[in-house]
Amino acid sequence: MAGTDSSIEITLAPGPAVILCEPQLGENIGTAARAMANFGLWDLRLVRPRDGWPNERAINAASRADHVLERVRVFETLEAAIADLTLVYATTARSRDLQKTVLGPDEAATNLASHIGAGNGAGLLFGRERWGLLNEEVALADAIVTLPVEPAFASLNIAQAVLLMAYEWRRHSAAGSALPFGNTMAEVAPREELVGLFGHLEETLERSGFFTAPDKKPTVVNNLRTMLARGQFTRQEIRTLRGVISSIDRKHERPNPNRQKRDTE
Amino acid sequence: MAGTDSSIEITLAPGPAVILCEPQLGENIGTAARAMANFGLWDLRLVRPRDGWPNERAINAASRADHVLERVRVFETLEAAIADLTLVYATTARSRDLQKTVLGPDEAATNLASHIGAGNGAGLLFGRERWGLLNEEVALADAIVTLPVEPAFASLNIAQAVLLMAYEWRRHSAAGSALPFGNTMAEVAPREELVGLFGHLEETLERSGFFTAPDKKPTVVNNLRTMLARGQFTRQEIRTLRGVISSIDRKHERPNPNRQKRDTE
Repeated sequence: MAGTDSSIEITLAPGPAVILCEPQLGENIGTAARAMANFGLWDLRLVRPRDGWPNERAINAASRADHVLERVRVFETLEAAIADLTLVYATTARSRDLQKTVLGPDEAATNLASHIGAGNGAGLLFGRERWGLLNEEVALADAIVTLPVEPAFASLNIAQAVLLMAYEWRRHSAAGSALPFGNTMAEVAPREELVGLFGHLEETLERSGFFTAPDKKPTVVNNLRTMLARGQFTRQEIRTLRGVISSIDRKHERPNPNRQKRDTE
Repeated sequence: MAGTDSSIEITLAPGPAVILCEPQLGENIGTAARAMANFGLWDLRLVRPRDGWPNERAINAASRADHVLERVRVFETLEAAIADLTLVYATTARSRDLQKTVLGPDEAATNLASHIGAGNGAGLLFGRERWGLLNEEVALADAIVTLPVEPAFASLNIAQAVLLMAYEWRRHSAAGSALPFGNTMAEVAPREELVGLFGHLEETLERSGFFTAPDKKPTVVNNLRTMLARGQFTRQEIRTLRGVISSIDRKHERPNPNRQKRDTE
């Protein structure tokens, strides 16, 4: 989905840090940075990235999430990476035999929003590509976050896990209540214009011989009106529809006795 | 995040079809299939895939989402791809000058869940990598769905857009109410065991000369108890903590007159 408006300046609003533990592939760091940028996160911290930092492959994969990449911080230990935070969640797809609360992303994001909204620092831990977080890393977190995946197909790559958490964060934070654009719908026409359309259509149908059984006409008319009312037409759309009716009425000359009558009206 | 349990059989539960319009890269078809599988979707339809079908690159990128790939259907037109559906949403990151309702993913998924829950077919349209859906394709849909992205960094790849919609679908469908695993937390110990811990600690501190100002002792004790109560300890954890206290008490011999007294107790 294209749609980036590059005329808008990126603001670094408060949000959770994303901490990647020993990421192996630069591509994954880059796509994680891009996923963060999509939903307004920017504080990316790496613990012992396998291929060092900076990483050319990460930069290529980040699709110009430069404001994230240029702020990346690298740490030797997870303890150092989360030293300044007061709420830390560990994301994992596996159950751990640890005395930890397990949250869904929705609940986790609610907690993050109130914690960060009160001016506190928070972070989300993500594990290695192949085997996730170690139990000793999970033990440093306040709670576990897991996603409502299909258990038979639970494996997400890091960027996708980051994307979903960033999305949930944004949905629960102030910025996320707004979609990037809204309805551009014009106002629905006042009812008298709809009634005008009804009259125009019904009069045209009458002349064209549409109502073959006069006793059924009221029901047929009601059904037509019901259909048209559901359309929530604007003034312009009603003008268009009346143009459609008029156009068909003039173009399709029918072998109809009323036709003659109309021409002399 | 690892964690797939391959002993669980994949069930094809009712869910929205995913329709990709003229996808260009096989990789994106594959990663979209994987994202669908993560959240239990399986009905993937392709309209005029640029490189034909089947596609080796798609298969490689799908990380064994075989149950999705082997059910892929290819269509010559979008009209044919959505012919059997009664609710169709178009995903787009750009505002369109169309008289269409714009929904967020949350609201869209709520509608999908009730529509599909009532036994009806529904689908989600996704556009080309480079320029999304054409207006004439959006016009075939009932409404537009857009994501609450950062407007200054709005570009998502197809797999990520599919992932977020599949996630929202699952969150709102019956299957999604359950996380793949829950708390494995043992029960919190009965209060008498916590009180036993308080007594053990306070008696030990008393002997060690911790309470230097007797008039402050009640406040200090209350603060200690408050801290410990917040831990919501299990029986085992309380046993561990009491072991910790006893161990420190025996190991660190202090120049304390009470020490002698204890040894003769």
